[in-house]
Amino acid sequence: MINFEIISTDSNARLGQITTQRGIINTPAFMPVGTNATVKAMSSDEMKELGAEILLSNTYHLYLRPGHEIIREVGGLHSFMRWDGPILTDSGGFQVFSLAPLRKIKGDGVEFRSHIDGSLHFLTPELAMEIQRALGADIAMVFDECTPYPASREYALNSLKLTTEWARRCKEYRPQGSGVRGQGSDNDITHDAAPSVGAGLCAWPGQPQGIAPANQSLFGIVQGGVYKDLRKQSAGELLEIEFDGYALGGLSVGEPKELMYEMVHFTTPLLPQGRPRYLMGIGDLMDVLEAVSAGIDMFDCVMPTRNARNGTLFTIQGRISIKREEYKKDPGPLDPDCSCYTCRNFSRAYLRHMFMSREILSMRLNTIHNLHFYLEFFRKMREAIKNNSFTGFRNRWTPILQKNFHEG
Amino acid sequence: MINFEIISTDSNARLGQITTQRGIINTPAFMPVGTNATVKAMSSDEMKELGAEILLSNTYHLYLRPGHEIIREVGGLHSFMRWDGPILTDSGGFQVFSLAPLRKIKGDGVEFRSHIDGSLHFLTPELAMEIQRALGADIAMVFDECTPYPASREYALNSLKLTTEWARRCKEYRPQGSGVRGQGSDNDITHDAAPSVGAGLCAWPGQPQGIAPANQSLFGIVQGGVYKDLRKQSAGELLEIEFDGYALGGLSVGEPKELMYEMVHFTTPLLPQGRPRYLMGIGDLMDVLEAVSAGIDMFDCVMPTRNARNGTLFTIQGRISIKREEYKKDPGPLDPDCSCYTCRNFSRAYLRHMFMSREILSMRLNTIHNLHFYLEFFRKMREAIKNNSFTGFRNRWTPILQKNFHEG
Repeated sequence: MINFEIISTDSNARLGQITTQRGIINTPAFMPVGTNATVKAMSSDEMKELGAEILLSNTYHLYLRPGHEIIREVGGLHSFMRWDGPILTDSGGFQVFSLAPLRKIKGDGVEFRSHIDGSLHFLTPELAMEIQRALGADIAMVFDECTPYPASREYALNSLKLTTEWARRCKEYRPQGSGVRGQGSDNDITHDAAPSVGAGLCAWPGQPQGIAPANQSLFGIVQGGVYKDLRKQSAGELLEIEFDGYALGGLSVGEPKELMYEMVHFTTPLLPQGRPRYLMGIGDLMDVLEAVSAGIDMFDCVMPTRNARNGTLFTIQGRISIKREEYKKDPGPLDPDCSCYTCRNFSRAYLRHMFMSREILSMRLNTIHNLHFYLEFFRKMREAIKNNSFTGFRNRWTPILQKNFHEG
Repeated sequence: MINFEIISTDSNARLGQITTQRGIINTPAFMPVGTNATVKAMSSDEMKELGAEILLSNTYHLYLRPGHEIIREVGGLHSFMRWDGPILTDSGGFQVFSLAPLRKIKGDGVEFRSHIDGSLHFLTPELAMEIQRALGADIAMVFDECTPYPASREYALNSLKLTTEWARRCKEYRPQGSGVRGQGSDNDITHDAAPSVGAGLCAWPGQPQGIAPANQSLFGIVQGGVYKDLRKQSAGELLEIEFDGYALGGLSVGEPKELMYEMVHFTTPLLPQGRPRYLMGIGDLMDVLEAVSAGIDMFDCVMPTRNARNGTLFTIQGRISIKREEYKKDPGPLDPDCSCYTCRNFSRAYLRHMFMSREILSMRLNTIHNLHFYLEFFRKMREAIKNNSFTGFRNRWTPILQKNFHEG
């Protein structure tokens, strides 16, 4: 089970540490997204070098391909992708509602068709838990309905009721099958399911194999749309069930930014001080600053990685579109103030050439840079909270972030 | 200038060392192909870790994009791609004849349209040399016409005459522009073209910048189609001009394998013992064994890298198509006998999943494995020549290579 400790605060901003069986996560934390059991274009070794302390992976995607049973059989997600740090998996809820065609809520769960091959599936809170257990996630998320925007009060209310009911079922779920097949543990209720694959690579010496139910943490997700009383109701109901951490869901789904900020500031204080708070899917660093000032501890977003692959790079001087003609002969680094592998070694001219030639190395070098930018931002932000200078940090970074996220 | 030393021989097979200003190349050598200033999916650091001692890059591609003048301005190809080992560049001849639409030989050179944007270009022996000088290649190739197969005796004769004439012009060419802009040298006839970019990344501390004309080696290319007397004539004419090394061109262009082998065995002994011999574009390792037995020292081919990206992997047990259903749950490494990064860390199940999900990491991991297979094969082959056991090596590897290159 995780342990969360608040080390210091600066107004509402919190500096903390989440201790897991696979290592410490310093908060506020950014979780790079490894949808298909890889952060796109990166190796797990590179993620370690970049200083990532936790990765996020997607239940929906891994359930459809290669299938959670396969990952279970070959030793779990950590061994599969050779990442020995903590992993948080989402529950698949968000993807079912955003990616899958023909989804249909049917009492017990959601029926949907795979976006890959059109096959029919039925995802329930129990299955979402079973998948996350098979993957061996250190932190699992409850299966929720992500309330869209706009949504009527009535829709939002019904949606939050469903989310609460599903959250309770997730909490109460006790796995039927085995967890990751590995060395087991005293807490593993299925230690009789002996590992049959000890000879292969899936026996990863020195690493904890799989996850015991007692070691897997579970976070609840607050819904309620943009209705304060519903957010309050949702938080209240989840707190009653009691989770290891709490997430804010259903934000940044199309609502005006002010409304999102209002919801974050209203909802965050309703959550217990002593548990990690996670704002799901938000990664515009201006929004991160706002959310940290409200007391949020965890973030995930595909912005740094997706933008990198499209040739959009974040720098202290502002956003760079590397395909632009002006970089054709530019011998200087992407960002003279950056210490990442890409900036230490390659010129803008080379990065432009790689991008224009559609070389795979382009995606790698760009992704390294953008992830370094994000992780470095979070390191500096933590330092600022520690030094009680978060406001100064925020004022200093606001114009830089504006040039990266809100111009052009 | 390069220096070539034969360390030992085993029948006609030669163990040698080419010494360049950027390091030693042990021969027989395999040169991975970095067409666009990157070995596809690889970083130069990874190429170093794999033990590559020389890379090949393509004049035609870099001339069209980003343009050799740009690479010259930002400090040359080595600095551009951060590879401090030797680089051999081809002359563009082969690509003009195989890739470019509407190519037309016009006395002085070849007119062609770019396969990228359709723009019109005119490549001459002098321009091919100028480009290779701008790139800063350690070993340059003469501009040749690659005789197709089939070709009439008359066509092959005219073609070889043209190649000889062009080879002479390449040898006699003295650069008009500057070489790579860098620290220059006493031999650099253009040291007055002062570096203007010292502040940028292109000043690569501790690395030789650019190439002085006296340090760039030039290899001639023997043509003559499948006509022995013409091969002899071509070799004779090139030897008269005198080059630092000699290549066999116009082979593996569609002719029957027996004919290719016949040409290699006939032509190789016509080349001087004391100079490196390079069989261009050949990389089927069965062919490599045959050519090494004839006295060839250098090879290049896209087979390991291109096959890797297509999910075809070479192993001691035979070729693997990683997309096959049978690897879905396979917890073992690609090749239990392989010590590469991929095989040390990842299961076939993971490699299949990466490939099926079209993840970038798939191309990286597969490429690492196939290049390791090739470079390891060459290391072992050199060891065998050293121990006078090349025949035994060949007999041992023939069934393995058959299962990789000539089955299914």
